[in-house]
Amino acid sequence: MSELRRDPITGRWTIIDMQEGPAPEPPAETETQTPGVGPQHCPFCPGHENLTPPEIYAQRQAGSAPNAGGWDVRVVPNKFPALQIEGTLSRRGFGVLDQCTGIGAHEVIIETPNHTRQTEDFTVDELLKVLEAYKARSLDLRNDARLKYSLIFKNVGTAAGATLEHAHSQLIALPIVPKRVQEELNGAERYYDFRERCVFCDMLHQELQQDERIVCENHSFVAYCPFVSRFPFETWILPKIHNVDFDATPTEALRDLSRLLKEVLERLRAALNRPSYNFMIHTAPIDSRQRDTYHWHIELIPALTRIAGFEWGTGFYINPTPPEQAADRLRGAAID
Amino acid sequence: MSELRRDPITGRWTIIDMQEGPAPEPPAETETQTPGVGPQHCPFCPGHENLTPPEIYAQRQAGSAPNAGGWDVRVVPNKFPALQIEGTLSRRGFGVLDQCTGIGAHEVIIETPNHTRQTEDFTVDELLKVLEAYKARSLDLRNDARLKYSLIFKNVGTAAGATLEHAHSQLIALPIVPKRVQEELNGAERYYDFRERCVFCDMLHQELQQDERIVCENHSFVAYCPFVSRFPFETWILPKIHNVDFDATPTEALRDLSRLLKEVLERLRAALNRPSYNFMIHTAPIDSRQRDTYHWHIELIPALTRIAGFEWGTGFYINPTPPEQAADRLRGAAID
Repeated sequence: MSELRRDPITGRWTIIDMQEGPAPEPPAETETQTPGVGPQHCPFCPGHENLTPPEIYAQRQAGSAPNAGGWDVRVVPNKFPALQIEGTLSRRGFGVLDQCTGIGAHEVIIETPNHTRQTEDFTVDELLKVLEAYKARSLDLRNDARLKYSLIFKNVGTAAGATLEHAHSQLIALPIVPKRVQEELNGAERYYDFRERCVFCDMLHQELQQDERIVCENHSFVAYCPFVSRFPFETWILPKIHNVDFDATPTEALRDLSRLLKEVLERLRAALNRPSYNFMIHTAPIDSRQRDTYHWHIELIPALTRIAGFEWGTGFYINPTPPEQAADRLRGAAID
Repeated sequence: MSELRRDPITGRWTIIDMQEGPAPEPPAETETQTPGVGPQHCPFCPGHENLTPPEIYAQRQAGSAPNAGGWDVRVVPNKFPALQIEGTLSRRGFGVLDQCTGIGAHEVIIETPNHTRQTEDFTVDELLKVLEAYKARSLDLRNDARLKYSLIFKNVGTAAGATLEHAHSQLIALPIVPKRVQEELNGAERYYDFRERCVFCDMLHQELQQDERIVCENHSFVAYCPFVSRFPFETWILPKIHNVDFDATPTEALRDLSRLLKEVLERLRAALNRPSYNFMIHTAPIDSRQRDTYHWHIELIPALTRIAGFEWGTGFYINPTPPEQAADRLRGAAID
């Protein structure tokens, strides 16, 4: 069981695993405890459905039974969840310190039955199924009144914190709007107060006009290395049409996203020789009044640099690769 | 030459190295380019003073000449600086985007002439000399009206972003108050508005009273694993007497800090088998009006976990080790 604790100075929450027992040495990764398993023991491979908790959602071939083979995409609770859906959400304080029970959801989206195919190898239709699973889970969790925010993210490679190679992503739903999201919401609102326009729309428009940092685009989406990239080859994907919620994206636009995300991942793999990476879907909080000011998007970060004292001390970053160079290199990468 | 770029949404600044040339592959670490050099080629060893830019400050034996041997602590500009002191500070915008010339200071504090002795091996007097160098440099940089903040930090070990093993720390002075510091200042001010007390003093008082997370203490300082530790074995050192500026610490208190910092580092080494770590001195901005609300302190983070999609997406952290367990283990570590 975990508990949420709130920093009395900055208001940042931390999830602390309160498990009793010997202190971990070295501390365990946060996701699962089975690093580098082959298909024989992989809990995400077909035939091993009993190694995961019972499925919450699946796209299955007609006639196949839940928690057995015959699925294309399968969503299960994380076996080692950071937060649990069972229990009562209660906040209490003692002195200056605040805590909250570790209520929330932590799900794993198993993207394919195939142990070795990576997300960029999927067909557009296959990746679309994954995006539809994201959307379906995200919409379903809106019904739980305790939850304030759903974050969908993907960790690939050891340097990016992944511990299983079988293609998967994760969803964590929180009883609190995260700090990072709140900062974006506040910033976007300040901009809107000043200019009565969405800052993301303005930024996107300027990036398209300036055309120095665009990686690729299609009818509904643009991928670019932002002017203020914190990391080498950081890439954002934004919908061209203003939209606050990822899960309000219609299927036709999701198909365009599938196409563009596949291309970005292929370009990254070709340009950087299979880097570890994280991507995060930044979307509005569940109960959102930011219809005009916020704009959902994907932030993708290859894990190429280390966070050190300067970054921890300032919250600023030092990026050795100008985004103009990164975009140029991604555009030039040879893909099929 | 670098430039500072400001995120139009959150206001976060990033330092971007604008060096022309082939895109780095893999991107270089930010500090120096000579990993794992032995004493023969170490730019920080005595006799190699010509391998660094000319010294800015040194504690030297009587009669020794600048930029030659005979020093105990030596401060030089970073050979590969993130920011440069030469030039004019100019900010400009185009469209929604903002940038600023990469003006600032980036110095290296070489803590000892001895290639292999690590900070925790120093005598209290030797470590006091390092702390005095921090203070002297920090005070001197107050005279440059372009600078708003001085961050002193230390990276030890590859996992914490260090590239040279010879004991050293760094100072980066910025033309902007960093985001992370501004958040602390704002949070501390909100608390003061509400209670007319320093939140750090209140937190410290509660930690001492509760006595579950204290690692060690002496007359002037306390070391503890904070209630909201983001990372396993995160340890903060706070002065017991309210003080906003690190560089206003009198020598007698610095000696107590030297004693306590050495003990904390020894306990970390013993408990965790020489972990990589970062520490950062969080102090008030140079031109500060936060005399009553802010409280300088050291944050020390062993590099044991990885930052992944959840942390990037939320700004929250998942900590697998309760700080109560971490403090207990640090207190119990066998040191001389």
